[in-house]
Amino acid sequence: MYGYFNGSILPVEQIAFGITDLGLLRGFGLFDYFRTYNGRPFQWDWYWERFANSAAKMHLPVPINKEEAHRVVLELIDKCNLPDIAVRFVMTGGYSPDSISVVRPNLLMMAEEIHPTPPNQYEEGIKVILDEYVREMAEVKSTDYKRVILLAQAIRSARASDVLYHKNGEISELSRSNFFLFKGDRLITPNRHILHGITRRTVMHLAQNDFQVEEGPVTLSDLYDADEAFTTSSTKKVLPIVQISDLTIGDGKPGQRTRFLLDEFNELIKNW
Amino acid sequence: MYGYFNGSILPVEQIAFGITDLGLLRGFGLFDYFRTYNGRPFQWDWYWERFANSAAKMHLPVPINKEEAHRVVLELIDKCNLPDIAVRFVMTGGYSPDSISVVRPNLLMMAEEIHPTPPNQYEEGIKVILDEYVREMAEVKSTDYKRVILLAQAIRSARASDVLYHKNGEISELSRSNFFLFKGDRLITPNRHILHGITRRTVMHLAQNDFQVEEGPVTLSDLYDADEAFTTSSTKKVLPIVQISDLTIGDGKPGQRTRFLLDEFNELIKNW
Repeated sequence: MYGYFNGSILPVEQIAFGITDLGLLRGFGLFDYFRTYNGRPFQWDWYWERFANSAAKMHLPVPINKEEAHRVVLELIDKCNLPDIAVRFVMTGGYSPDSISVVRPNLLMMAEEIHPTPPNQYEEGIKVILDEYVREMAEVKSTDYKRVILLAQAIRSARASDVLYHKNGEISELSRSNFFLFKGDRLITPNRHILHGITRRTVMHLAQNDFQVEEGPVTLSDLYDADEAFTTSSTKKVLPIVQISDLTIGDGKPGQRTRFLLDEFNELIKNW
Repeated sequence: MYGYFNGSILPVEQIAFGITDLGLLRGFGLFDYFRTYNGRPFQWDWYWERFANSAAKMHLPVPINKEEAHRVVLELIDKCNLPDIAVRFVMTGGYSPDSISVVRPNLLMMAEEIHPTPPNQYEEGIKVILDEYVREMAEVKSTDYKRVILLAQAIRSARASDVLYHKNGEISELSRSNFFLFKGDRLITPNRHILHGITRRTVMHLAQNDFQVEEGPVTLSDLYDADEAFTTSSTKKVLPIVQISDLTIGDGKPGQRTRFLLDEFNELIKNW
C-alpha cells in the first residue's frame, strides 16, 4: 500500500513521524476516512468538506488544496492496484520546537485495505453497550479515541461490538459511527454532540422518500419504544442494532425498514 | 540528543513512529517528563511511580521495569554530555493491525534540552486566563493537550502565559502545571480533577514546616481574597501568578511567601 506524506508518495512502510510531532506528543491531530466503490472515491466532495471543516476548527491550515488532494487520492488508488481501497487522511500539529507550539502541520494520506463488516452482523444485528460519555469537540474528527480503546475489554466481556454514548439522558453516537432509530415510519437520529457522518447524510437522503426523517434529541427513554435501530459509517454502511445493554430492540432481529435502507444504500454504491 | 525506543538507544533524529501507531491515529498515549539536577534525575522514584500509574489506568503494560528504565535514563544522561537534561517518556498503544486494537505498546524515552523559564517571570510573576474546562482523565498524564494548543492565540492576545482551568465554579490546574494560593499563612491547592504534580508534592513537603498546607476544593471566589498565587511544574519550579484574567492577585507583585518557597526549592535542587 502507498501513502502521501508532506508532498511525497511512498510505500507506507517507508513513512514515519518524527518524535516531536504534536499528534504523537500532545494528541493534536485530526483525520478523515473514506473508501472507494468501483475504484471511485465515495462522496469525495462531502468528505473533503468535512476534513477542511475539522482542520479549520483546530486552527490548522490544510497544506494542500482540494484538486491536488483529489489527484493524490487517484494516484494512490492507481498505485495500490486493488478493486477498492480505503483512504485515511491524518493531519497533526506537525513538528514542534518546544513540544507545544504549532509551526506547520504534517499531512498524511494513506491507502488502507478495507476491513469489511462480517456478513453475519448484517443478518443477526449487533449488540452495543451504553456508556455515559460525550466526546470533546464531537463535531471535529479529532484523533481522540481514548475512551473506546479503554472500553475494549468491557465491550468484549459483554459480547458486544461497540459502545453507544449518552450524557444527561441524551444519546449521541457510537464510538465511530452514527445512531438511528425507527418508531414506526419515523426515522430519528441525534443532532448534537456528534460527528456528522457522511454515511449518515447519505442515508438521510435515501430515506426521505419513504420515511419521516427527524434530526433531534434522542433520549435514553426513546430506546424503550423504538421498533428498530441501526448505525451508519463508511465501513458499516447500514448495520442493524438489536440489543443495547440489557434492552432488546423490537423483536431482537434486524428490522424490515433497516434492511430496506441497507438495500437502498447497496444499490447506490453498486452504481457509484 | 539521544533517545531509547523499544529497546535501542539512538540519536533522536533516527527515531520515528510508524503510521499505524495508536498514539498518532487515536490519541492513545501517555507520557511523563522530568529533569536532572547536578546530572541526577530529580525525584526519580516519584516520577516512575506516576508513569506506572498512568500506564495502569490506560491498561497498558510497561514493557520495561523500573531498574532497567533507570539504567536507560543514566545512559541517556551520559551520552548527551550536558550538565543537565530533561527526559520525556512517551508510551502509546503501539502499532495496530486495524487502527483500533492494542497489541503491544511503543515506548520512547528521549533526552531533551531544558527550556528554562525566563528569569523575568520569577521577578514579575505571570498572568493566566481562566478557561472553563476540565481535562478528561485529569489524573492520568495522557497526551491529550488539544485544549491549550487551541487556546494559544487567546493566551497570546491576553498577553498571558497560560490558562487556569475551572469547571462548575471549581479550579483545577493550569494547562501543564498545578495551582496554589496563599490566604495568610494557609497554603491551599486543589485536590481533584488534577494531575498530581511531582513538583507540587515536593513543594507541599517543603511548605509544611512554615505554613498550614491544605489540599481541597478551590473555588473561583477563593481567588478574590487570595494574598498570593503560584504554579508549580518541573520546568517552572515555583512561579508566581500575579494576574488571573481581569483579577489582580494581592498587590500585583510576586508575594513574599511564594518567594520563600521558591528559595526553599532552589536550595533543595542545589544539593540534589
